[in-house]
Amino acid sequence: MNEIIMDYAGKDIKRFFNLDNSVYREGAIPPKYKEMLGLVASTVLKCDDCIEYHMVRCKEEGVTDEEMVETLGIALIVGGSITIPHLRSAFELWDKMNEED
Amino acid sequence: MNEIIMDYAGKDIKRFFNLDNSVYREGAIPPKYKEMLGLVASTVLKCDDCIEYHMVRCKEEGVTDEEMVETLGIALIVGGSITIPHLRSAFELWDKMNEED
Amino acid sequence: MNEIIMDYAGKDIKRFFNLDNSVYREGAIPPKYKEMLGLVASTVLKCDDCIEYHMVRCKEEGVTDEEMVETLGIALIVGGSITIPHLRSAFELWDKMNEED
Amino acid sequence: MNEIIMDYAGKDIKRFFNLDNSVYREGAIPPKYKEMLGLVASTVLKCDDCIEYHMVRCKEEGVTDEEMVETLGIALIVGGSITIPHLRSAFELWDKMNEED
Amino acid sequence: MNEIIMDYAGKDIKRFFNLDNSVYREGAIPPKYKEMLGLVASTVLKCDDCIEYHMVRCKEEGVTDEEMVETLGIALIVGGSITIPHLRSAFELWDKMNEED
Amino acid sequence: MNEIIMDYAGKDIKRFFNLDNSVYREGAIPPKYKEMLGLVASTVLKCDDCIEYHMVRCKEEGVTDEEMVETLGIALIVGGSITIPHLRSAFELWDKMNEED
Repeated sequence: MNEIIMDYAGKDIKRFFNLDNSVYREGAIPPKYKEMLGLVASTVLKCDDCIEYHMVRCKEEGVTDEEMVETLGIALIVGGSITIPHLRSAFELWDKMNEED
Repeated sequence: MNEIIMDYAGKDIKRFFNLDNSVYREGAIPPKYKEMLGLVASTVLKCDDCIEYHMVRCKEEGVTDEEMVETLGIALIVGGSITIPHLRSAFELWDKMNEED
Repeated sequence: MNEIIMDYAGKDIKRFFNLDNSVYREGAIPPKYKEMLGLVASTVLKCDDCIEYHMVRCKEEGVTDEEMVETLGIALIVGGSITIPHLRSAFELWDKMNEED
Repeated sequence: MNEIIMDYAGKDIKRFFNLDNSVYREGAIPPKYKEMLGLVASTVLKCDDCIEYHMVRCKEEGVTDEEMVETLGIALIVGGSITIPHLRSAFELWDKMNEED
Repeated sequence: MNEIIMDYAGKDIKRFFNLDNSVYREGAIPPKYKEMLGLVASTVLKCDDCIEYHMVRCKEEGVTDEEMVETLGIALIVGGSITIPHLRSAFELWDKMNEED
Repeated sequence: MNEIIMDYAGKDIKRFFNLDNSVYREGAIPPKYKEMLGLVASTVLKCDDCIEYHMVRCKEEGVTDEEMVETLGIALIVGGSITIPHLRSAFELWDKMNEED
């Protein structure tokens, strides 16, 4: 998906992409919670592509419906009603992934 | 439109949605001006779905062309040129609603 | 307050400042509501100096306590809990202006 | 700290404050992780007062140095270099709380 | 593209559009660098339409691949990973314009 | 200034800081223009500490008054009136550096 960026990217952009993978890796915080952290940050900053990425990773890490609802609830309270369209697309994707389970 | 959110929502998210209706109800400020307030906030925060919602409500509350132009003018000056794509879709919707009148 | 900007400003910056005055002038929308529109936009974008300016103008235009509470309530719901520190300084200024009345 | 808001607040603003407490309560996600979620959201939205609040709560919930570094690392990568001043004040507060331990 | 805005616009909105052209004109800073400044601002504020406009203008002003990579690299570091979807569409457009050269 | 961050930082945060230096180094774009790019991005994202940093670097790289006015003019038009308090502190610092010349 980011191949076109990589075609042009110099060292700095490539290093940023490495970092962007690195911060979500197993560490003191389990990957599941790291993905939830990434999801909340992406939601309050209203980045749909980023939300989608972290939703898929949350599903892979076994996040439950209840945990997802609480995570997006925090994003909604912190970020306000302008996050609603992003909650909508987030839950649509979540619902689709639930049905495929 | 937000049914998928409601399918998953717990008490907190549902309460937020109630609040999100409540603040625009008749009060010391007439509903027409409350919708204009919601519209300006949505425009400077660049939320197209929210803009659309408040544009429709503004039309229902009898906002005139002149009032709409002044409202979006304030959003443009406060939020800068990055609001222009949102003014464009706002006026396109407004124009469509005007033709249907 | 903006004298230092004006000392350096060329034509473009000066024109922007003229526009920034012009959009709040009497028009189809009464100045009182224009100031409330400016206040909501400033609050969701978290600009304390802009909030202060519009609070003072709201007071001059005779905005009541109830209207102010409803206006900032909309800002809070649209912009979320990160607007809370700005509501705090807004109400502190409002309270000070009320006591001076 | 928010007493001045409460002095003026009507029902809607009060309900929002209740919600703002409610979303961080024990649930499917342990409070410790909820505070980290609140912290990341506050950091990418650059709200120093909110950061301070969640830092104190993180300390109370037993978040370790390693977990704090990973949490703020995610905020930094998602939100970019403009979050750096907020990381600085966050770590200053953390360091002060560590010394008081 | 902005004709619908112009159909409704009053004097203030029209003046803003004039200003929005004026700041990118030849001056002490060559137009090429002004477009890069507009591009970086548009990218960190995540405005795809604005990005597209400045990418086309950058191409017209002879910006090279290396300069474009460095410009978007700065936007990425300042604005963080949420700018990635915008870098992607920016490089896709750039690549298309390169092939048409 | 960022020593407290470095005291706690793990590898990821340190790498980000390296990157944050690297993108402003001499390359296809002269350092002077890179600092102006960083300044515009910091201004529209309203980060006073970042603005200050890039203003000092702009002065070191020989940016003239006219170039500074044009740079901040672009930030003002793209980011709107909420950038005004940041232009004010930017020009105050600039004026102080001019007097020290």
